[in-house]
Amino acid sequence: MSIGENKLLEWIQTEMPKSRNALLKNGDDAALLLASPRGILVATDMLLDGTHFLSTETPPELIGRKSVAVNLSDIAAMGGRPESLFISLAMPEGTSLEWVQRVMNGAADIAREFDCGIDGGDTNAWAGPFAINVCVTGSPHWRGVVTRSGAQDGDVVMVSGLTLGHSLSTGRHLTFTPRVREAKWLMDHFPINSMMDTSDGLAEDLPRLARASSKRIVIDAAKITSSQSDEKELKAQLCDGEDFELVFTCAAQVASQIQKEFPWSCGIRVIGRVESGDGVYLTPLQGGSPQKLTYHGYEH
Amino acid sequence: MSIGENKLLEWIQTEMPKSRNALLKNGDDAALLLASPRGILVATDMLLDGTHFLSTETPPELIGRKSVAVNLSDIAAMGGRPESLFISLAMPEGTSLEWVQRVMNGAADIAREFDCGIDGGDTNAWAGPFAINVCVTGSPHWRGVVTRSGAQDGDVVMVSGLTLGHSLSTGRHLTFTPRVREAKWLMDHFPINSMMDTSDGLAEDLPRLARASSKRIVIDAAKITSSQSDEKELKAQLCDGEDFELVFTCAAQVASQIQKEFPWSCGIRVIGRVESGDGVYLTPLQGGSPQKLTYHGYEH
Repeated sequence: MSIGENKLLEWIQTEMPKSRNALLKNGDDAALLLASPRGILVATDMLLDGTHFLSTETPPELIGRKSVAVNLSDIAAMGGRPESLFISLAMPEGTSLEWVQRVMNGAADIAREFDCGIDGGDTNAWAGPFAINVCVTGSPHWRGVVTRSGAQDGDVVMVSGLTLGHSLSTGRHLTFTPRVREAKWLMDHFPINSMMDTSDGLAEDLPRLARASSKRIVIDAAKITSSQSDEKELKAQLCDGEDFELVFTCAAQVASQIQKEFPWSCGIRVIGRVESGDGVYLTPLQGGSPQKLTYHGYEH
Repeated sequence: MSIGENKLLEWIQTEMPKSRNALLKNGDDAALLLASPRGILVATDMLLDGTHFLSTETPPELIGRKSVAVNLSDIAAMGGRPESLFISLAMPEGTSLEWVQRVMNGAADIAREFDCGIDGGDTNAWAGPFAINVCVTGSPHWRGVVTRSGAQDGDVVMVSGLTLGHSLSTGRHLTFTPRVREAKWLMDHFPINSMMDTSDGLAEDLPRLARASSKRIVIDAAKITSSQSDEKELKAQLCDGEDFELVFTCAAQVASQIQKEFPWSCGIRVIGRVESGDGVYLTPLQGGSPQKLTYHGYEH
């Protein structure tokens, strides 16, 4: 550990918000967190220079923000409340203290926005590019957790947000809002049968939900894209990935209620239905019978 | 995500041991863990090619083993029982599936040895060197957790293991046994006032314990090294780091009992005492009054 790392550690321990669940002061070998009797949700995501951001182009605050946001999205996808973040950094030699502080400030800002704390981590110097790993813990909703495996025959498939795709080209993958509040509202008010977040594109993500639930999912191309005849736009919406929207299934009547009452500005839509069977099928833009989805999801 | 990554994920989900606390099947956005009403311990460590291992020289099983072992050592240092591991991988393009499987098998072996499971993670390809992040969760001992801040005037400083230093040159940093069982035995039978693990060398670690406890620590050079006159050997034992032994403080009578009853083959020793004041002092090999410790701990 270099002097720089000790300085950084001290700054992190002083300046970063802590969660209210963290029982110890900083600086021990592990954090001690209060956990709900319903258990604790844990997820982790690693973000890498050149793969998930470009350290030469991306403002460091947005690197920190995205690293936390994708983890918050994982907890939201389970219907839970994120609480504690643990952040590990791999810093190229010569990384300035100020640059890393900007990364961490970006992480801290979104942590505060969602009432989370940064309760631990690890800092390292090396000869490789910048890498950041975030591990998040959270509490299950009082209704319990929603998994990918609960989709039921006759369920409707819904997705948050009025558009998908173009996340990389528009920079939205760096600035998106994880759907923590929206997921909580859904859980508070409605029985949600299955849920996940769209990280790799619906074309990659929906087959996972279908497989986990042992069901067939049929989505309607005309409900995915508004430009009724543009195959290229459809493909972007299905395959670009890094949307971090909620995709979930619920009974048809529940879906109607949700559409009527949904109070969040991101909007929500029905894009398909759940049937017995397997695989994911797409009703083509021009109509006709559903065809097996052949698009490939987003490849990093 | 490439085909290789999907294959790897499937293999991980099938082959890796899961902890008994993990309530969901693999493949959701987050794991759900049963947590103790006493709370949950969380620690994280990132290990990097060129800094913590050499991917060209180190058998991949030992990379996996070390990555888990340093995390288990963090939970042991709090007196807790490690349970769940979350492993993130950053893989250089061209990494073979077989090589990563060997890393993960090394991780799984030590996880099984300590009755832990690999309950989640993340896999990524990139242009950088191999990096691995492990996040560990665990349960506090029924007595509670031991921190760095509990050292009391008159306490004795003890360390597990009969030798320190030379961990890198001997390869012990790759094969060490985290002191999980030893820490549990100590917690089961004795009041331990403060504890941590020695990851950066006593010369770097003891000042942290002294500072956290607002105490002075005085260690006796003659109790650190057996070669009574070798300053170089003393420096190696104090500064090399990567020992991952337990260092802890307890009342003097307790220390005598521990030395009489300690059943573990690693052995245990008294190396110093706690006084009011601050800083870490060293009684020189040749005797005389303690001098402020000027050695610097291990720098990666």
